[in-house]
Amino acid sequence: MTFDPHDPSAQLREDDACALTDHPAGTRADEYAVDLYTVADYLLDRLVELGVDSMFGVPGDVTLGFLDHVEAHPDIDWVGTATELGAGYAADGYARLRGVGVVCTTFGVGELSAVNAIAGAYAELVPVLHVVGAPTMSVQAQGRAVHHSLGDGDFEHTARMSAEVSAACAILNGTDDAGEIDRVLATMIAQSRPGYLSIPADVASSPCTPPRGPLAIGRPVSDRTALRRFACAARTLLADRSPVVLADIVVHRAGAQRELDRLIQMRGLRYASLLWGRRVVDESGAGYLGVYLGEPSEPSVRVAVEGAPVLVTVGVQITDLISGGFSDRLDANPRIDIRPHTAVVDGEVFDYIEMRDALVALTDLLAHVTPTEASSVEHLTPAVLSSDAPLTQGELWALVTESLTLADTVFAEQGTSFYGMAAQRLPHGATIVGQPLWASIGYTLPAMMGAALAAPDRRPVLLIGDGAAQMTAAELGTIIRLGIPAVIVVVNNNGYTVERAIHGPTKAYNDIARWQWTQLPYVLGATSATVATHFVTSSGQLADALDDAAEHPGRLTLIEAVTAALDVPPTLEAVAAAAAAATAR
Amino acid sequence: MTFDPHDPSAQLREDDACALTDHPAGTRADEYAVDLYTVADYLLDRLVELGVDSMFGVPGDVTLGFLDHVEAHPDIDWVGTATELGAGYAADGYARLRGVGVVCTTFGVGELSAVNAIAGAYAELVPVLHVVGAPTMSVQAQGRAVHHSLGDGDFEHTARMSAEVSAACAILNGTDDAGEIDRVLATMIAQSRPGYLSIPADVASSPCTPPRGPLAIGRPVSDRTALRRFACAARTLLADRSPVVLADIVVHRAGAQRELDRLIQMRGLRYASLLWGRRVVDESGAGYLGVYLGEPSEPSVRVAVEGAPVLVTVGVQITDLISGGFSDRLDANPRIDIRPHTAVVDGEVFDYIEMRDALVALTDLLAHVTPTEASSVEHLTPAVLSSDAPLTQGELWALVTESLTLADTVFAEQGTSFYGMAAQRLPHGATIVGQPLWASIGYTLPAMMGAALAAPDRRPVLLIGDGAAQMTAAELGTIIRLGIPAVIVVVNNNGYTVERAIHGPTKAYNDIARWQWTQLPYVLGATSATVATHFVTSSGQLADALDDAAEHPGRLTLIEAVTAALDVPPTLEAVAAAAAAATAR
Repeated sequence: MTFDPHDPSAQLREDDACALTDHPAGTRADEYAVDLYTVADYLLDRLVELGVDSMFGVPGDVTLGFLDHVEAHPDIDWVGTATELGAGYAADGYARLRGVGVVCTTFGVGELSAVNAIAGAYAELVPVLHVVGAPTMSVQAQGRAVHHSLGDGDFEHTARMSAEVSAACAILNGTDDAGEIDRVLATMIAQSRPGYLSIPADVASSPCTPPRGPLAIGRPVSDRTALRRFACAARTLLADRSPVVLADIVVHRAGAQRELDRLIQMRGLRYASLLWGRRVVDESGAGYLGVYLGEPSEPSVRVAVEGAPVLVTVGVQITDLISGGFSDRLDANPRIDIRPHTAVVDGEVFDYIEMRDALVALTDLLAHVTPTEASSVEHLTPAVLSSDAPLTQGELWALVTESLTLADTVFAEQGTSFYGMAAQRLPHGATIVGQPLWASIGYTLPAMMGAALAAPDRRPVLLIGDGAAQMTAAELGTIIRLGIPAVIVVVNNNGYTVERAIHGPTKAYNDIARWQWTQLPYVLGATSATVATHFVTSSGQLADALDDAAEHPGRLTLIEAVTAALDVPPTLEAVAAAAAAATAR
Repeated sequence: MTFDPHDPSAQLREDDACALTDHPAGTRADEYAVDLYTVADYLLDRLVELGVDSMFGVPGDVTLGFLDHVEAHPDIDWVGTATELGAGYAADGYARLRGVGVVCTTFGVGELSAVNAIAGAYAELVPVLHVVGAPTMSVQAQGRAVHHSLGDGDFEHTARMSAEVSAACAILNGTDDAGEIDRVLATMIAQSRPGYLSIPADVASSPCTPPRGPLAIGRPVSDRTALRRFACAARTLLADRSPVVLADIVVHRAGAQRELDRLIQMRGLRYASLLWGRRVVDESGAGYLGVYLGEPSEPSVRVAVEGAPVLVTVGVQITDLISGGFSDRLDANPRIDIRPHTAVVDGEVFDYIEMRDALVALTDLLAHVTPTEASSVEHLTPAVLSSDAPLTQGELWALVTESLTLADTVFAEQGTSFYGMAAQRLPHGATIVGQPLWASIGYTLPAMMGAALAAPDRRPVLLIGDGAAQMTAAELGTIIRLGIPAVIVVVNNNGYTVERAIHGPTKAYNDIARWQWTQLPYVLGATSATVATHFVTSSGQLADALDDAAEHPGRLTLIEAVTAALDVPPTLEAVAAAAAAATAR
């Protein structure tokens, strides 16, 4: 896995990525008869090999031939969405649960509508393949003013735009198409970032040889000597001190989750995460301290992390919105940093060490250290609520959290939802996903849809504000059409509360149109048999609605929860103050 | 006006564009007291000078300070939309009626959500300014991983992306901000294409000197000698032959509408337009032949245009979707081509001739020619309809056209609507707008909203299919919030009929979710006092609904018109066949 552009050891070795091995492998061509095995089939077989079973998108005239191959493929489903941006977000959500996601759009208009989602996947290290159907090679060669082009005869404007937010791009042209597909896919996976494939309509349907073996992905390996030297330095630094582990999202992207699990499950080891990387730690574990977010942290977490005898950071990437505007103070005490391909012990850099191996080495080392017993963790008990009084943000998130089950995937929109959940401790097995770096509002609604298809055994839960939900609400129709039994909480606080918290609390530019959220599903295709909606203004009503959702797991439940426009979770208040200060600087 | 990138005479003279004259002018600073005149104020004053009174967009934390200046400005209104793509389309629709449009978004997430709309404006020669609020200069200089960035310290990814679809771009940085604003605006107008201004939050609020005079736009002028030579050649070619004029959209973009009007109002002169440029001719005029679209033209139009003794093309740009896949045959007879900065007489090129001047010269010449009497134009009478039978596409467009009034602005979505209207003749004074080159479905709904604000004295009419309307339906809530009394016809044909016509008529990938269109407005904020909806399945019901709309001009009327999924206007059938053939090539 390589994905840190600033890390010199993180460069993919192109030769490795492109080399096809000679091992024969079962492909679609072996499994059922086709008249002609095409470039489209090759791509689809590779995607299935990578674990993909759904492709999101909107058709266009130059993609329709390709979509015939998608429809014919036994192992991959076409998921048509209302918008390309929704398809892109869905592919991102799918990839965060499944490993790889795919969005397919049409030339120009479609691909540019999705490009914000692709940029988000780039920023947040998510491997999403963007397949773009393009005019035929002869149409492009003629340079004529065809629809979806800029009319200037240059058919590469959009590919150049996508290159800014992709790890690898290719415009297929009939020359080594299979090799180009493999290069893009391998680079995308190795860097855990988007890939872009523009496929002219005639190229998609041109003949191709099936894959001769598994996709070769250049996976760097650790240097054994460096690893020994790292372990030695770490042992010296640790001595008999009790470390605190601070883990973040890059652990997931680097594929080191299991190794981190083993480390933080050690008896007595204390650990915390950042907000971005909540999903990489078990918040119900005995050693769990809480979420660290710089100054806005709970004091106990801040003291434990900043005052750790030795702090071990794993896959940490500090961004403004998860650190109270870079108010993190992690430099006071001795520190070990474990990055995707590098480890650092008290300032000494050890290159060519893979995160997984560093974590295993550290786990071995700590077996010889007796960590201090973790302070017993207080599980939060929601305050006794006056169940008839107007619902507050504080009650809202406590009740939502109480209703979560082991197998929930929670998408929390960047806004009051994400920060409201920051103060809540998730049950073992629940996974929470946000988008705090790219922070594109509206993201979570389609992303939840994608995640639901990626992990159908998990209950999808969506927590989103009204302003954000308006951005991508059309995909609620797609969610209904697909019969996804999600629990959706729309926080109706009448506008952009996250912006109000930063600037202009009562300004008209933070107002939005008022929608009737509880009626929207029925307008977008639902029936009362498939969807239930609840309008709640008190904690008692919310609790009842969440109970109803739990009792009907096969049904979609949408809860419109009304809170005051200026009721802001305390964590968001602190973060917004920091953001406002940064803007004023 | 310069906007043809292939035309060497079309290059803007940078010096002219940037030069500020010394004439003092009334600016906002003179009109009311402000504590500090800022870069934001300078930009807003320039925009007002260009005729802008509305700015579309979605707020973000780095734009909020700028928006305070927008809110404070007496002559410009903030129009918050549900989505940035909707804001971009609205700005485009506004610009098509008003001359210039503005969309304001936030860094990264917001600007990329709007970029498809900007690309459309580029393709279709529409001057839309994209104002992007960016992080402060110090945040950018520190290169930290702040929200809405890719996290790699490079804050110019998105500006490079926008540069592909902009005539001029600037990232303001405190050095000659006023000059940079003027350069971008002048180039945008001169080329009739988008401009891009990235404004760091601290730069927006930094002090600035008000404009010292009107914006200097480098407007090329005709070479008098070339013009005389052109007139001489044209006179010889014309001799006593009766020309036919074929006009297209570039007439509008080149600002030569009045000169064209004068030409085609000449007694006996016959003229036609292409589908893109319907708005540049009066379809109720005595000399009007119809719409020319290559092979799919009505035979009488095709014979008249292709067999013209002399064909005069004015501002014609042939694209695939308006020419039946380049099936136009305009080369058989002598021809005069009038382009923005060039005229061509039977192959002889005369550079440095502005379209306006060429049209005046031609009008003068034709005063000495006696054109043959135009054949009397048959105004279409809709067939006698069986008012209870299921509504057909043929009836639908005839009835809609019958209901149009002089002051309607009709937005026809690229699909069955655009082609259905192709066979209809518009009343004098009605303006029809489509987007046949960029052809981004969903465009017309927000574009109509923008046009309604740009020309509040005209009745906005929107004709759109269900698949397209789902793309941008959230802006229906904005239309309702703004109280725009539009007539909206949603053609419910259960999916992407335009794609079905090209490929896969019964394929699942052309299906979409079924929405209850007549209930949607009430969910998005309407009341029965402000919005009426009608569900029609027969021509009788449609006629009644259109009458109801006419009787309640202050109310929004939404008509859901059901037609069969495979009922395709004949013009679309012909065009789709050509598109399918081009894809297969």
